[in-house]
Amino acid sequence: MEDNKIQEVQIPMQVAPPSGGGGGIHVFAPATVANVVCGFDVLGFAVNEPGDEVIMRLTDKPGITISKITGDDGRLPLDPAKNTVSVSVQHYLESVGRTDVGLDIELHKKMPIGSGLGSSSASTVAGLFAIKTLLGDESDPINLLPFAMKGEEMACGQGHADNVAPALFGGFVLIRSYEPLDVVRLPHPKDLYCAIVFPDVDVPTREARQIIRKNIQMKDAVTQWGNIAGLVSGLFMQDIDLIGRSMKDVLVEPVRSMLIPDFYKMREIAMGMGAVSFGISGSGPSVFAFTKDEETATLITQKLQQHLTGLKIGSNTYVSTINDAGPKVIARF
Amino acid sequence: MEDNKIQEVQIPMQVAPPSGGGGGIHVFAPATVANVVCGFDVLGFAVNEPGDEVIMRLTDKPGITISKITGDDGRLPLDPAKNTVSVSVQHYLESVGRTDVGLDIELHKKMPIGSGLGSSSASTVAGLFAIKTLLGDESDPINLLPFAMKGEEMACGQGHADNVAPALFGGFVLIRSYEPLDVVRLPHPKDLYCAIVFPDVDVPTREARQIIRKNIQMKDAVTQWGNIAGLVSGLFMQDIDLIGRSMKDVLVEPVRSMLIPDFYKMREIAMGMGAVSFGISGSGPSVFAFTKDEETATLITQKLQQHLTGLKIGSNTYVSTINDAGPKVIARF
Repeated sequence: MEDNKIQEVQIPMQVAPPSGGGGGIHVFAPATVANVVCGFDVLGFAVNEPGDEVIMRLTDKPGITISKITGDDGRLPLDPAKNTVSVSVQHYLESVGRTDVGLDIELHKKMPIGSGLGSSSASTVAGLFAIKTLLGDESDPINLLPFAMKGEEMACGQGHADNVAPALFGGFVLIRSYEPLDVVRLPHPKDLYCAIVFPDVDVPTREARQIIRKNIQMKDAVTQWGNIAGLVSGLFMQDIDLIGRSMKDVLVEPVRSMLIPDFYKMREIAMGMGAVSFGISGSGPSVFAFTKDEETATLITQKLQQHLTGLKIGSNTYVSTINDAGPKVIARF
Repeated sequence: MEDNKIQEVQIPMQVAPPSGGGGGIHVFAPATVANVVCGFDVLGFAVNEPGDEVIMRLTDKPGITISKITGDDGRLPLDPAKNTVSVSVQHYLESVGRTDVGLDIELHKKMPIGSGLGSSSASTVAGLFAIKTLLGDESDPINLLPFAMKGEEMACGQGHADNVAPALFGGFVLIRSYEPLDVVRLPHPKDLYCAIVFPDVDVPTREARQIIRKNIQMKDAVTQWGNIAGLVSGLFMQDIDLIGRSMKDVLVEPVRSMLIPDFYKMREIAMGMGAVSFGISGSGPSVFAFTKDEETATLITQKLQQHLTGLKIGSNTYVSTINDAGPKVIARF
């Protein structure tokens, strides 16, 4: 999967010149939960909260500048050659033959970096959606996916799509195949709530990938693909109990959970409070639970936050339904 | 999966005494295609043709006899303690507390043994459906599954459900989990045709299992579960092209195909003639192709049979839609 030939994707040339010169846009893109317990590297979904925001302005001078980044504690580069947002936007501009465009970008991080919630994906997708909209490119948003994956490759070392695809399309997304890229949007029950807790500990994505076993037993793989088939069936059948029964992971969670404070205790708490399922979001350390109602989701986040406080670990919590919209324009100016 | 605790399944005691003493029944149960390329050990579907038939008569003397087996070239045991049909029926009778019942069984094999088409499953399911119907047991057919799996354990060395479950329910079936047993019935496009070719070579199920690798690479498993998730999505979405794209197997087919004469050449022929997908049925040597119409399915079976004849290998061919009914009563007397 490392060698995604994303440059081969054909982009229709439907890009109009900027209307009236100048102008800008303010875009939101959602956080995402990748893997979804039993769908390592192939499944993800978007949530309504948190998310990142990009403000993009057309300028007179060709090239991209980043004038401001907030909410990152100074961790992200202002150098446009090193920032995933500008790099992916630059790839897009080259692909549509618009390197004449001048852009200034403000990135407002509204969620923690290194949380396992697709932080870099949300920023990248917000940037790509901003430039697509600014340039009046009305082609299918799926055409942005290769550029977003290019950003992921820079941020995480691998061009995975299980965060960027749901950030871009909203909802549940299956990456059926990487070569060739084949993305399937999945339905989901309307009354599915997601409780997210981000324990403020450091789990870098690259390291979280490296601890995963390269060789596994066939019997565990069979268990895993029985479960992903069950989860996908449950999503189509709107069967929340089947979704819950299917969300088990015998391969990745046993390893990655070691990097998360009191993972199994948190699971016990959440499941005891009526969660449908509980697992790691992406590579962690964020954890998430599905619930059948908002109140249970809220109570679970409160209880888990309280538990982490007892361990002297700070946390952020979010309660959300599934985000079906993907990125959205907050304002044009 | 070897230790399926199938005896733990609770069977409701809704079994009435045989109505009027004596009496008999003639039942058909369908052949099945297990694995379905990317769903090793967890997916299967039933076809309309071929299938096996059981004629069962109530007798005055408690216990089971097998008076006749046809179509097996003398390969199956008449000893009721050694035949999968009688053994699974005996388990059922014990479970419902009806060991007082006397039965005579005729088994008419209408499909080749060792074909990879769920031959033993069809016989076992026909027998179980016959006794259930004879005794007026109106409980959910899913209650027969543990007994059918007991038969599979005897026939194949392992109590798998990917043939017996579709033979019992019809249609596409997912075995989401074996412990506890969790079976999901999947929809499918109505206009999906199945072309089956059984090359008359010997591939015993036990041996076909043993050559499968016990240890695999995570990256191959990820490819596989992306594909099974795609196949399940395609079934729900009635998207035959997605079904076709998803039916790839990087783990089992590369090994088992070695036991099948000219497997890759046959695939090339079938795909070249417009097949949606092509793969091994169960542990082989039967192969199957999905097509979008009956004519293409028929032409493919003819061409493949011709190819095998050129290799001096005899073959049986079948063209069928998906069987959604499962077992059926042909006659009562």
